[in-house]
Amino acid sequence: MTASRPLILVTNDDGIVSPGIRHLVEIASEFGEVVVVAPDTPQSAKGHAITIHDIIRVNKVQVFDGVESYACSGTPVDCVKMAKHTLLKDRKIDLCLSGINHGSNASVNIIYSGTMSAAMEASMEGIKAIGFSLCNFSFEADFTAARYYVWKLIGWALNNDMEACKLLNVNIPGIPLESVKGIKICRQAEARWKEDFLENTDPNGRNYFWLSGKFVCDDRDHDTDVWALDDGYVSVVPCHHDLTHYGALETYRHIEHHADEQ
Amino acid sequence: MTASRPLILVTNDDGIVSPGIRHLVEIASEFGEVVVVAPDTPQSAKGHAITIHDIIRVNKVQVFDGVESYACSGTPVDCVKMAKHTLLKDRKIDLCLSGINHGSNASVNIIYSGTMSAAMEASMEGIKAIGFSLCNFSFEADFTAARYYVWKLIGWALNNDMEACKLLNVNIPGIPLESVKGIKICRQAEARWKEDFLENTDPNGRNYFWLSGKFVCDDRDHDTDVWALDDGYVSVVPCHHDLTHYGALETYRHIEHHADEQ
Repeated sequence: MTASRPLILVTNDDGIVSPGIRHLVEIASEFGEVVVVAPDTPQSAKGHAITIHDIIRVNKVQVFDGVESYACSGTPVDCVKMAKHTLLKDRKIDLCLSGINHGSNASVNIIYSGTMSAAMEASMEGIKAIGFSLCNFSFEADFTAARYYVWKLIGWALNNDMEACKLLNVNIPGIPLESVKGIKICRQAEARWKEDFLENTDPNGRNYFWLSGKFVCDDRDHDTDVWALDDGYVSVVPCHHDLTHYGALETYRHIEHHADEQ
Repeated sequence: MTASRPLILVTNDDGIVSPGIRHLVEIASEFGEVVVVAPDTPQSAKGHAITIHDIIRVNKVQVFDGVESYACSGTPVDCVKMAKHTLLKDRKIDLCLSGINHGSNASVNIIYSGTMSAAMEASMEGIKAIGFSLCNFSFEADFTAARYYVWKLIGWALNNDMEACKLLNVNIPGIPLESVKGIKICRQAEARWKEDFLENTDPNGRNYFWLSGKFVCDDRDHDTDVWALDDGYVSVVPCHHDLTHYGALETYRHIEHHADEQ
């Protein structure tokens, strides 16, 4: 431990009053000075959305005892941008933690996840970042196992420069602590959502849809996050934001075209 | 050309009445049967957001002569999900085109982009998908160069199985057609947005912020999309949705932990 305590930014996508972020703030406070900048309303599945066509409100609020906290009208990614470039612009953020999300962000769920997008945004700024998710949607979920592994991984992250990769996607299985087998480093499982829009009619006789769906994962290899979670492990996926498909670069080189050869 | 015309889904994030999508629909109609499912309002920078806590409205509209078109209240990704799982659920979509976006989606802009997220969603469903962006924000922009290269790449995509990679991020420089040097296959440039939130006071004396920023790209290698565009080329980045940082898997293997060794 150094003399000055590390500065830890905490955010989430379920909103500043959800149980998951309260657990995370409590654990993070054991390790350093925590500042919370989180959405003032639930922002699940907002992906990497940012607010560019509208204003953003930020209010200093009293939610967690003795912890500087801001409720933000924007998306999870807006919260990180506000923290980095305005609220904490003169300070060095040592670690960004997002969550604990209510529900899995394993596999392709990372793409839709506000929790993971907030963490990714921090990592794009060069800040070490971890998104935590508990594979149980309920606000009454038991966070005992999650708390233990979140505590373990925060301790690790503060003592590691994370030079190889600034972003971790951590999912905790929704089972009792004594049933959790440990931690696995994994790749993101390939999967998809098979959607089934529910169709209904409003009181004015107008049609509307509600997105619903089923997670379908046919990727049964033993090195994925989905497999690790099913087997009772906490999954840790090192992630990045480079979407280039390097394997396809040479395959598609023949598309290259020079205007003077038209 | 086969006897039946290919089915082409067109969407965007600037909204169904933006000039860019009109150009795209006109060009795509030369190649196949076009169905448009696009947001009824501008949805720029919505990333991979989906609507899960609210209803979605879909209205059949008359916007493009002789082209089946739907205006959707949801995000760009919602539009693709609606098309795939409801509106076109009994048909095979041969190609999904998104854009033509007003403004660059090169480099890390892909992460925030509704245009590219819509195309990515289609590719996650196994549909060949291309997002097109013109590096000019103006609704009065000259689309001559964009139209030529969009036409060229749609023709290519319909005649290629795109087995190596189903998703292309295409950016067209905002210069006259005769100045465009050709097409380059690129990787995504590493860059970031240096944000500068504008702070102001509303008529009620309450504070608000507006997100503003500057694109900062220090990645000056000659194989990136930013470099290609600056040099007068159309950039084509083959993309995927696997965010695993494979290079870091072994580096972080030491985090693995077995509960019975606690």
